[in-house]
This record gives sequence, C-alpha cells and structure tokens, in this order.
Amino acid sequence: MREIIANTEYPGFLLKCQEELQLDSGKKIKNFQIAYQTYGSLNAQKNNAILVCHALTGDQFPAEENPITKKNGWWELMIGPDKPIDTNKYFVICSNVLGGCVGTTGPNDINPDTSKIYGLDFPTITIRDMVKVQKILVDELGISKLLSVAGGSMGAMQVLQWAATYPESVRSIMSIAGSLKHSAQNIAFDEAGRQSIMLDPNWQNGRYLESNEKPENGLSVARMIAHITYLSEKAFQNKFGRNLQEKNDLSFGFGIDFQVESYLRYQGRSFVDRFDANSYLYMTRAMDYFDVKDEIIANKKTIIDNSIRFLVLSFTSDWLFPTKESREIVSLLNSIGSNVSFAEVVSDRGHDSFLLDEPQFFKVAQGFLKGIK
Amino acid sequence: MREIIANTEYPGFLLKCQEELQLDSGKKIKNFQIAYQTYGSLNAQKNNAILVCHALTGDQFPAEENPITKKNGWWELMIGPDKPIDTNKYFVICSNVLGGCVGTTGPNDINPDTSKIYGLDFPTITIRDMVKVQKILVDELGISKLLSVAGGSMGAMQVLQWAATYPESVRSIMSIAGSLKHSAQNIAFDEAGRQSIMLDPNWQNGRYLESNEKPENGLSVARMIAHITYLSEKAFQNKFGRNLQEKNDLSFGFGIDFQVESYLRYQGRSFVDRFDANSYLYMTRAMDYFDVKDEIIANKKTIIDNSIRFLVLSFTSDWLFPTKESREIVSLLNSIGSNVSFAEVVSDRGHDSFLLDEPQFFKVAQGFLKGIK
Repeated sequence: MREIIANTEYPGFLLKCQEELQLDSGKKIKNFQIAYQTYGSLNAQKNNAILVCHALTGDQFPAEENPITKKNGWWELMIGPDKPIDTNKYFVICSNVLGGCVGTTGPNDINPDTSKIYGLDFPTITIRDMVKVQKILVDELGISKLLSVAGGSMGAMQVLQWAATYPESVRSIMSIAGSLKHSAQNIAFDEAGRQSIMLDPNWQNGRYLESNEKPENGLSVARMIAHITYLSEKAFQNKFGRNLQEKNDLSFGFGIDFQVESYLRYQGRSFVDRFDANSYLYMTRAMDYFDVKDEIIANKKTIIDNSIRFLVLSFTSDWLFPTKESREIVSLLNSIGSNVSFAEVVSDRGHDSFLLDEPQFFKVAQGFLKGIK
Repeated sequence: MREIIANTEYPGFLLKCQEELQLDSGKKIKNFQIAYQTYGSLNAQKNNAILVCHALTGDQFPAEENPITKKNGWWELMIGPDKPIDTNKYFVICSNVLGGCVGTTGPNDINPDTSKIYGLDFPTITIRDMVKVQKILVDELGISKLLSVAGGSMGAMQVLQWAATYPESVRSIMSIAGSLKHSAQNIAFDEAGRQSIMLDPNWQNGRYLESNEKPENGLSVARMIAHITYLSEKAFQNKFGRNLQEKNDLSFGFGIDFQVESYLRYQGRSFVDRFDANSYLYMTRAMDYFDVKDEIIANKKTIIDNSIRFLVLSFTSDWLFPTKESREIVSLLNSIGSNVSFAEVVSDRGHDSFLLDEPQFFKVAQGFLKGIK
C-alpha cells in the first residue's frame, strides 16, 4: 500500500510505502517512506516534471528558504520562477535520498523488525537503490516520463543511474560535476571521513542515538576534510589567503589564527547540527560503490531508442570531480551513439561551483532545458 | 655549556646545550638537545658538509636502515656511497627538528621548570627556530660554511630559511617540492589534522603521556588525511584504482572493500607507533606560520654577496606544493639577482615523488651538487 500525506515534521510530503524494498545488497527494507518537496505545477499532460537529485549533504529543499537551516535552498540560484529550472514552466520534484536523515527512511529510523533504531542494522545502499525509490515516487505521482533529471556531484551519480536503469522514463539528463565511477582518491577521502566518525568513541558502533552522546567530533572532522575538497586551491587563496582572524599577529598557539581555520571549524561545527553521522557513512559508501558504466552499455539500445538527450557539465577548477571524469561520461555516451552535449565552465571556485552563482553554467543549463520537447 | 655525546636511545649523537634558546614566539626553552646522525667524513678543510633537513614526519635517519622502523631511511635513494649526495665525498648531517619526537627537545620531553612532561606548555616553534637550532649544531661541529642545505617539503622550508637567516653560512641550497609560504589550502589540511587529534578525548589537552591512553585514533585520521595529499590522483588510480582487497565482491558494509581503504588504514595505524601526537601539532603549526619572503628580501645583499647557488625543484603532479609555488621561489630569487636553477621533474606520483625513485630528479640534484665549489 502506498499513500502520500503531508509531512508534519518538515514542509512538503511523505510517500509512505507499506511494502518490501529489494536492495542491491540482497537485503530488503520493510516499509519505507520518501520525504519530498515540489515547486511549480504539474501540467495536465504530466510532461513538465523535472526531478532534482541532491548531493551528499543536500536535502529535498533546493529552492526557496530551507526550513531547517533557514538559509537559501542549496540550488535556489538554479530553481525558481524565471530561473534556469523555471518553476513557472516546470514542475520540480526533489526527494531526500534513501539512507538520508531528512525524512526519507535511513539508519536513524526505527527498524520494524526490532522496534529499535536501525543504526548499522540498516542495510548498505547503492545509488541504484536511491534511484529505485525515486522511481517509485515518480510513478506514484503519475509521471510516466520525466522531462529531465538533474543533479550535481552525488546528484549527478543518481542522474546517470536514471539513464542506465530507467531509460524509458527520462527525456533528458543533466550530469553536473559528476563521474561514471568514484575515483580511488575520492574513496580515500570518504574513508578518512568515515574513519573519523567510526573512531570517535561516541559513535558507539552506530548506536549513539540510544545514548546522550553523538559522534560530533568525528563528524565535524569528516566535514572539514570534505569541505577542503569542495573548494579549489585558488578559491582558498582568494577567500582566505594567509589572512589572520580578527588579530594582527600570530598567537603562537593552537587556537584560531588564520581565517581559513575559523571557516573550517565553523563548517565542521555547524554541520553536526543538521546531519546524522550514520547517514554520512551510508551516503559516502553508496558513492564509493558507484560504477555505472557497464549498466549504461548494457542498456544502450533503450537509451538510443528513447532519444535521451544528455548534458554533461564540469568546472575547470573542480579537482574532486575533474573535467577528465566528465569527459569519460561524454566519451562513453558518444560511443553508444547517444545525443550528448558537453560544457566545461570556467570557474576558479572548485567543486562547489555547481552550487554558486556561475552565469555561464546557468545559461548552458537553461538553454539545454529549453531544447527538450 | 654545550657537549656532544653518543645517543644511547637511538644511533647517532646528541648535542646537549645547557643554555636558554630564544624563540620567535618571545618564549624561551631552558636547556635543549639536538639528536642527529652523520654519514661520510668531514674533510680537513671542513668544506664538504651537507645539511639535510627532514619533512613533517621524517627523522635524523635519511640514509641506511632506519633504526626505529627497520625500513630504509627516508632518503636512502638520495644519500649514500655513489648516490646523488655521495657519502664518499660529502659529510652529511641530519638532525631531528626542534619540537620533534626522535630525540631533539620537543613537547614530549620534561619541562625543567615543572619536572613534568611539557605537553602544550612547550612553546610554539617556527621553522626559523628549527633552523636556529641546526645552526648551533653546525657551529659546534666547527663548520663555518655548509656546502649545501637540502630538503623536501617541510625540509625545503628549512632550506630556504637557512638562506634567509644565515646566508653567510651556506654555499648552496636545494629546495625540493617547497614554497615561500604555506598556502591557505595547506593550512586547512593541517587544521583538519590538528582538530582530529585535539578532538580525540584521549588527547586530554595534550597531557596524554601522563595517562595510559594516547590519541591514537585522532592521530591516525590526521595521518590518513595527510597521506592523501602526498599522492596524486593519478598515483591513487595507478596504485589502487577501484580494486577490491582480497575479495571478489563488495561486502555491503563499512569494513575494508577497496585496496585503497586497506592502504589508508594501514598508514594511519602504523604511524601512531612511531610518531607523537603533540609533535604533529607543533610541526604542522610551524609550517602554517612559515612565510619567508620578506626575510629573503631583507637579506638580499648578503645572499648576493655570498654567491649562494640555489636549486629549486618541483614535480609535475605535486598538488600539495605545486610547481606554481616553486616558480614563486624562483621568481623571488631572480628578482633579487641570485643564481638560481629551476627544474620541474615529470612524475605522476605526487608530492611523495621527492622520496621515490625519480632518476631525473637525482640526476639534476647530483649535477647541481657537482657544480658547487
């Protein structure tokens, strides 16, 4: 049984599914729910829907004010009236991913088998599992074909997974700052972050929600590590350089001397208020496991038969998902004969560029979408 | 009073100084010792001495077998009979830096004022302080002019500091994979590592040596973070790619699936056996504080008058100390009219290249040294 209800915890909706979800790991989740938000209106033909997929620490609130942080939505420059993803024209759907911590079923929910919080009893999930759940949501909304699926970073992984697994259900794909598979270096950064969490004694083998102590220190350091990878060296240089934080001289100690230290500590500290440590483990693991090439090749006929249009976009200074990796996507898509556009946007702000005000990026995205019928 | 004695804890020597050491912070250290090792023989004219400066986690054992780890010395490819720094010709001196944990005075030693282990009562030190102590050692050995001072990474910082502070005491300088100042991105990586240590409850505000628990988890994660920065993305790709560790399938868990995870965990775990967490804090802080440009400019006349020859060397795939930063050194040295050679060595092994078998690198270093009279 499936039903859509208003989400009482956050704005938006919940799709509650009383059924088993079969996962790539071979395990199943009994009953699950998907928290999502929408913007704009679905037209009568139901052919103006765009699914937006969030990145590692994103949520279902890309546009307007984020109800949790009270800050702007993570893609508010991209989505809204008269913006590239124009909510006057398009119906935008964004759901919290499976394993997430903002309403969709994840490791901090109750395990129906034990009536206790899942913790590490939550099964390991893949990007394909996340997309499977999104497909259920799109089906429930009565949409047989999405006009587009768009996302950056881990969102781009989901986007490519849509093309690979459900090529009949998408008209177009926007892969931004993504890759066909997670690189060894990226797995390494993920692992350093996970070890930081798992070696925090407050992590308690994942059962911290049953106690008063959460692995905030470990999660905070994980966030600091990740945050460095989101910026470029140039961005660090431009933003902070060696500027001191509210002082004229070095303090000769281990407090905050440099602005970049203040920034990083703030990023770590504020993250623990809005994100769950176990979710962080599951999300990063899903990224590590991502390797979609073979499935795209296996389904190439359906991809071609459905005339899916692809936009692959990267940023010059992104070293976490460098242009080289977007070129590999393009190369694969060309090799199977699909319709693919590629743009490398000049930006010195690193991987984070996909969330920032990058006019050339928005222009390309808007133009691409306008061309999709 | 100064005296040189045999080091009973490790091979090599100790220079014990019964005197106050004035530091850049304004603080003083009462009595200190310098642990060092030598290779080859000092000639009668005392003009064949090369001081080798170690990097963040190095020690005074660059050549032959390391007595602590039983592995090869960290620069054994560079130093030895018939090697680029040929111990048949040169007298090589290498000392553990001030603040280190392999015999030279540092935060894990006894504070003579309190008779307790220093911990965070040890004063913050700078690269200039480290070099000041090296100068005392060189003086005690009766060497008025070093044939060369050579080092990579944090070693290159010391090398440049020698030229800036003691230009009358060096004939030549080899700065390898270095910079004029620590970049914002590098301060950020250092800070993430320090926070990992300082947020470990076992760190106990630096007083862990008085208890049975050391901040091994925090130090281990700090090492993992740093280790990623020592390799290039290509090196990760070539070494590990997405290869699985002794298994054929993903485990769908948070154990070790990928070889790169196994490697990283091993690097973290093995590091805590040979390195002190507080020393790690002091070393990284000294690097953060490093900014030698003004002092080089201030002393340019003495640098020129002493005809110091400089070799500045970088590696193409080094993103921690990229070629751009070596070019800044070269540019500054050219601008003051000094004699500087520059080489960028093609290597895909990242920052670590300076410790690895890179024939072109050795050839340049050897040729440079041969030209120094």
